[in-house]
Amino acid sequence: MKYGHFDDARREYVITTPQTPYPWINYLGNEAFFGLISNTSGGYSFYKDAKLRRITRFRYNSVPIDNGGRYFYINDNGDVWSHTWKPVKKELDFYECRHGLGYSIFTGERNGIRVEQLAFVPNGENAEIHRLKIKNTSDAKKDFKLFSFIEWCLWDAQDDTTNFQRNFSTGEVEIVGSTIYHKTEYKERRNHYAFYSVNVPVDGYDTDRDSFVGLYNGFEAPDSVMNGECKNSVASGWSPVAAHQINVELAPGEEKVFVFTLGYIENPQDEKWESKGIINKKPAEALMSRFATDEAVEAAFAALKGSWDKLLSHYTLQSDDEKLNRMVNIWNPYQCMVTFNMSRSASYFESGIGRGMGFRDSNQDLLGFVHQIPERARERIIDIASTQFEDGGCYHQYQPLTKKGNNDIGSGFNDDPLWLILGTTAYIKESGDLDILKEMVPFDNDENNKATLFDHLRVSLDHVTNNLGPHGLPLIGRADWNDCLNLNCFSNTPGESFQTTENQEGGVAESVFIAGMYVMIGKEYVALCKEIGNEAEAARATAEVEKMEKNILAHGYDGEWFLRAYDFYGNKIGSNENEEGKIFIESQGFCVMAGVGAETGEAEKALNSVKERLDTEYGIVLNNPAFTTYHIEMGEISTYPAGYKENAGIFCHNNPWIACAETVIGRGDRAFEVYKKIAPAYLEEKSDIHKTEPYVYSQMVAGKDAVRHGEAKNSWLTGTAAWNFITISQWILGIKPDYKGLKVDPCIPKAWDGYKIMREFKGANYEISIQNPNHVSKGVKSLVVDGEVINGNIIPDFKDGKTHQVEVVLG
Amino acid sequence: MKYGHFDDARREYVITTPQTPYPWINYLGNEAFFGLISNTSGGYSFYKDAKLRRITRFRYNSVPIDNGGRYFYINDNGDVWSHTWKPVKKELDFYECRHGLGYSIFTGERNGIRVEQLAFVPNGENAEIHRLKIKNTSDAKKDFKLFSFIEWCLWDAQDDTTNFQRNFSTGEVEIVGSTIYHKTEYKERRNHYAFYSVNVPVDGYDTDRDSFVGLYNGFEAPDSVMNGECKNSVASGWSPVAAHQINVELAPGEEKVFVFTLGYIENPQDEKWESKGIINKKPAEALMSRFATDEAVEAAFAALKGSWDKLLSHYTLQSDDEKLNRMVNIWNPYQCMVTFNMSRSASYFESGIGRGMGFRDSNQDLLGFVHQIPERARERIIDIASTQFEDGGCYHQYQPLTKKGNNDIGSGFNDDPLWLILGTTAYIKESGDLDILKEMVPFDNDENNKATLFDHLRVSLDHVTNNLGPHGLPLIGRADWNDCLNLNCFSNTPGESFQTTENQEGGVAESVFIAGMYVMIGKEYVALCKEIGNEAEAARATAEVEKMEKNILAHGYDGEWFLRAYDFYGNKIGSNENEEGKIFIESQGFCVMAGVGAETGEAEKALNSVKERLDTEYGIVLNNPAFTTYHIEMGEISTYPAGYKENAGIFCHNNPWIACAETVIGRGDRAFEVYKKIAPAYLEEKSDIHKTEPYVYSQMVAGKDAVRHGEAKNSWLTGTAAWNFITISQWILGIKPDYKGLKVDPCIPKAWDGYKIMREFKGANYEISIQNPNHVSKGVKSLVVDGEVINGNIIPDFKDGKTHQVEVVLG
Repeated sequence: MKYGHFDDARREYVITTPQTPYPWINYLGNEAFFGLISNTSGGYSFYKDAKLRRITRFRYNSVPIDNGGRYFYINDNGDVWSHTWKPVKKELDFYECRHGLGYSIFTGERNGIRVEQLAFVPNGENAEIHRLKIKNTSDAKKDFKLFSFIEWCLWDAQDDTTNFQRNFSTGEVEIVGSTIYHKTEYKERRNHYAFYSVNVPVDGYDTDRDSFVGLYNGFEAPDSVMNGECKNSVASGWSPVAAHQINVELAPGEEKVFVFTLGYIENPQDEKWESKGIINKKPAEALMSRFATDEAVEAAFAALKGSWDKLLSHYTLQSDDEKLNRMVNIWNPYQCMVTFNMSRSASYFESGIGRGMGFRDSNQDLLGFVHQIPERARERIIDIASTQFEDGGCYHQYQPLTKKGNNDIGSGFNDDPLWLILGTTAYIKESGDLDILKEMVPFDNDENNKATLFDHLRVSLDHVTNNLGPHGLPLIGRADWNDCLNLNCFSNTPGESFQTTENQEGGVAESVFIAGMYVMIGKEYVALCKEIGNEAEAARATAEVEKMEKNILAHGYDGEWFLRAYDFYGNKIGSNENEEGKIFIESQGFCVMAGVGAETGEAEKALNSVKERLDTEYGIVLNNPAFTTYHIEMGEISTYPAGYKENAGIFCHNNPWIACAETVIGRGDRAFEVYKKIAPAYLEEKSDIHKTEPYVYSQMVAGKDAVRHGEAKNSWLTGTAAWNFITISQWILGIKPDYKGLKVDPCIPKAWDGYKIMREFKGANYEISIQNPNHVSKGVKSLVVDGEVINGNIIPDFKDGKTHQVEVVLG
Repeated sequence: MKYGHFDDARREYVITTPQTPYPWINYLGNEAFFGLISNTSGGYSFYKDAKLRRITRFRYNSVPIDNGGRYFYINDNGDVWSHTWKPVKKELDFYECRHGLGYSIFTGERNGIRVEQLAFVPNGENAEIHRLKIKNTSDAKKDFKLFSFIEWCLWDAQDDTTNFQRNFSTGEVEIVGSTIYHKTEYKERRNHYAFYSVNVPVDGYDTDRDSFVGLYNGFEAPDSVMNGECKNSVASGWSPVAAHQINVELAPGEEKVFVFTLGYIENPQDEKWESKGIINKKPAEALMSRFATDEAVEAAFAALKGSWDKLLSHYTLQSDDEKLNRMVNIWNPYQCMVTFNMSRSASYFESGIGRGMGFRDSNQDLLGFVHQIPERARERIIDIASTQFEDGGCYHQYQPLTKKGNNDIGSGFNDDPLWLILGTTAYIKESGDLDILKEMVPFDNDENNKATLFDHLRVSLDHVTNNLGPHGLPLIGRADWNDCLNLNCFSNTPGESFQTTENQEGGVAESVFIAGMYVMIGKEYVALCKEIGNEAEAARATAEVEKMEKNILAHGYDGEWFLRAYDFYGNKIGSNENEEGKIFIESQGFCVMAGVGAETGEAEKALNSVKERLDTEYGIVLNNPAFTTYHIEMGEISTYPAGYKENAGIFCHNNPWIACAETVIGRGDRAFEVYKKIAPAYLEEKSDIHKTEPYVYSQMVAGKDAVRHGEAKNSWLTGTAAWNFITISQWILGIKPDYKGLKVDPCIPKAWDGYKIMREFKGANYEISIQNPNHVSKGVKSLVVDGEVINGNIIPDFKDGKTHQVEVVLG
């Protein structure tokens, strides 16, 4: 069963039934004001921080699901409905939701009234625009009432859901004309307020939830809407809301336009008040005046589209596979941008009140957006590196507002430092900005203790070399990329964090995964050292990397695949000796990506074992067989029911590592097969099983041991987005930024005839045509740039602002 | 408008319409398993700790309100309804909810089917029983389907509402016969599970919420109920629930009984499993077997009633005022017990995931229940004192599970130590247990640093004497009883705690309220010292108390009333000099209770000022005029909108202090007037304005400056319960435990003719008849015990297990 379809020309996903298997959402906003919006206009808005500046209220895991949003109601002479189906759930003659890039359009029609809602955050504005076009599609005059509704959150989303003994007494609003201002706590220490307005006079309003909704009603049947009349209520404590009533008359065929603005204002401390107790509304009025007309809205909408055109123009594909085109050109880079904006904070699975920015996550996310906005990647790298310790260790998370390390989570995730090298080299290759290496960057945010960014990279590498275990493999610390494989944290207490329990400090558990990372990223480091002419450091690192490669093959290989780790007691994890968890995906991916055993056969054997033991229709599971009992010495991984999450779930983040690894040994067909299994555009037909949005990746799909094999969870905010973009754009389609130019190194299905890539790179454009007349997977036979044959496979770096024609022939 | 009535004979409040102005709730359980249950069977259950062992899910501040509970549905051939009205909200032919002591009974009837639900926690059991009697009241055969429903919480109530990326993958159940076991995380570190069962075979079940309810439905229309058929779904992640389907046939007049048991089991670590992956169900089966029949349920219900009979028998009143009788005999002591059980953790306003036990709160709560269960009061006193510091200072809160001080909140609330003296003397007067003073009690829970409880009391008193300010008045520290008057904590940052910000440490703000407390409680301390023969300490303390009395009159009196405090800058608070907050209630109450100015006129003037400036129809506001702007030097108090909470709200906790104070100056009419204004039984007719339950006190009623004057909030868990019980039972009705016996010292309205009190005291019973032939307010003219005239007003302490007749004549 299908719930919609892609409209590639408009770069939209079109949902044609409101009852999707789970709410399918989109994100509004790209700078400071953000909104999550579902296919029935559910969701919420926040300013910068989803926890501390939540603007509207939303109830996670509610019954019914997706409870709360920017709701509109029509009362057509007693017939009450919503053009978004929810919350009223009255049957519609027509329903459509179009999720586009940074906007959504909802259209619903019933009994000759057609409502179209355009929702977006204009560039540079702290506001959501909801433009409603309402048309009489019938032959008779229409006379009905339109109601809007949002519920204010009292700013701190966590406090808002727990501290009722205070919060039920604090809510305050002001009402001026058609604008409802939410000013709770503005009286005291806040200098910000929010407002909800409409660009026409209103026939009524409500600002008190119980008055508008009725204490015992749900959003599907608010009292004021059912009665056809707002109560002009003024909230005093309890739950302030904003609802407008507009009485509408439409002649046959007539259309009217209403612009609703949901805005957020911060006033300077000395300009807080208009008069005693009356907030200064000038900035709000200015904002509203900028969107007073439909023309102004159209112009802002065009500007938003233009900015997305620009962002997505850096890498585009023309191939025969329309699903692939839409992943590469639209949805995968879009998800990368959203993941960058949100970190892991706010989705329909992340409640927005949880965690800070991950050191590891942020570096990986950066890989996915660095080609779109290298200048913001630069800023992010400096922020991340500033939280690092002098010995190369890292806080596992840092707080976005303070940009300081999070002591609650602490450090000791021993893969973390290496990701900084990978993020930095990706940035330099994209931008050519070697100067970033000379930036003076603090350790642990101490302005009195700084070193160059290059020094940070050096201590990052050395942090691994300086922390090796009995087999010469890296000590894992609290955990590596697999946050749930906790080999030195033994926890017996329910509710205790598996990652931060430090009861086995000094443990000697080792990670073969980090070893693989070290070899792969160590080689990146060596290349960087050579690029800046530091041959001595390159030689030193090369020696360490080679030693690690040997240690992996000597102690980290189990005959048919790479081991995963050694535990606290020195026992093997991910070995054929084990009864459960015999093989893990992560070490296979990274060791082969690093080239370990690529020439001696271990790599190929390992990838064959992955296919044989971990592969499923819906992707590759993390490990197998699944753990069926709790292993205290392994930590959280064994707590999950079999087949879910890190316990043999298809953890999508690591699937692309296998695709990349397959390209290392030249198996383009298998690489693309792995890529396709989890790429959402290919899963559209399976939405009943898959459940989550068919236009973005999910963090996890239930594995073959699970009751609900194939069911996805935790869509949107996942490192999966970045890694898949890298995989398809660089490792499969094979256009990789390099220090000297664009390297061309595809590894594709043999059946492909060819494809074209448009790449903007360091200010020049490259139109790259790749032909595959001999139907090979790999190998560049010839490279011609602007008519000139080039030796090797590097397109020179013209930096001339011009467009260059590149002809590549494989063979 | 009234929503119900008292049934004093059954000690129940009878609600006759489900649409009360706010959900009106009751508490089930008295030891370890607790439930909150509203008049429509909403609410939730937990084991010991409402945060860490939440058994069922409930959504606070939901839309609709009161979303989640123990729901039952009838599908009568397509007509779907609930006998509790909610969640279906179908009109009923009859509806009634009877909230009794530790149980609730819900009866609903529609179209000839009558359902009666009895809900209670049997003594000594970790389970809620919901017994349904279903009767065919029609003349025709009835053939319908009964559905039960609860939703499991994944144990940690806070994590359950935030950590979806994990929690949506962990849910697990087992189903055996009619029993649904919830075993999420039992696989790993938990040795506890819950179950929901019924004592008959079922015709279907559901354990997966989306299957039973349907993703887009609310609880009012679950898919399985609407379709008349459960899906026998087995939860795997997402949201596990428990729903039974029972097909029922009833002949005309026939009744069937169904016993539903919601239980909680903890297994020993080595008896967790029946077999691999299968939980050990033996204890659950044993529990269920104890309630397999209606007879067993009836017996357990009778036992529960018996235990409440016993608890409430220690102090009972016979007067001409039935409202007063029901407050004194039923509802006020009941609320005291609930407040003791819950501390401030779980109500419909306290989300159960907030705070620990308050040092001050716990001591005050104890005053209200010490006569019912002195042995538990003793335990509580030792727990509280164990968290005290060696210098007499205290943690402001301690954790109920660890019984250790809470570092996050810290100390420095300088009234805290004095409450320990008051709690302890109350306990000793009630029990005669002077030996408690010799108990060795740790400081700060350090087993190596102990002192006698008497030493703890001494340092408590001295903590005030050792921390005096420039006027010889007590330094306030972070705050005193008024947690929102924060005179040394200047906060500019939104969301920051007003109480724990320590930016003005060393501040010299002084509290006249603590000064009054010091005099009053200091006199209690002196009496205790004399009782144990420590005359030297009594003399020392007396000198200090007298000095304080002088300081209050010299520096703490403003001409017409007592000042409230001096701020950080030495400016007066609560003075006629101030523009707002000219007068505060707390210092008037406690200074007069202490007798300060009682003989020289200041006391009476102060109470007249209270009446003139603070009194309203609904009670006495905390301060006036209300603050209209934020005063950083006063803290949280000025953040509230005018008239709410501590900013000129009627903060009910302190109203009885004024009633007590009025008795000190002999004004019995005014004392009882103050008492009646906030006593819920007297407010029943005003429920539309008052909103909260008419059988229990609320923390706060909106004051005269508020938009919604008279509207109550935060019902149930408030020190108001204990203080009002003390006020009415000891200060107005005038039966006070004392070291030598029961002191008789009424202060009543002149119009009263008399009343009778039955008092169980130290193992003897006293039937006390108080006659007021001369219509005075105060003064015992004669006291006759068992026919013998007694000099003075102390009934001797017989300790003989017998019943004694006491005749008191006022005049």
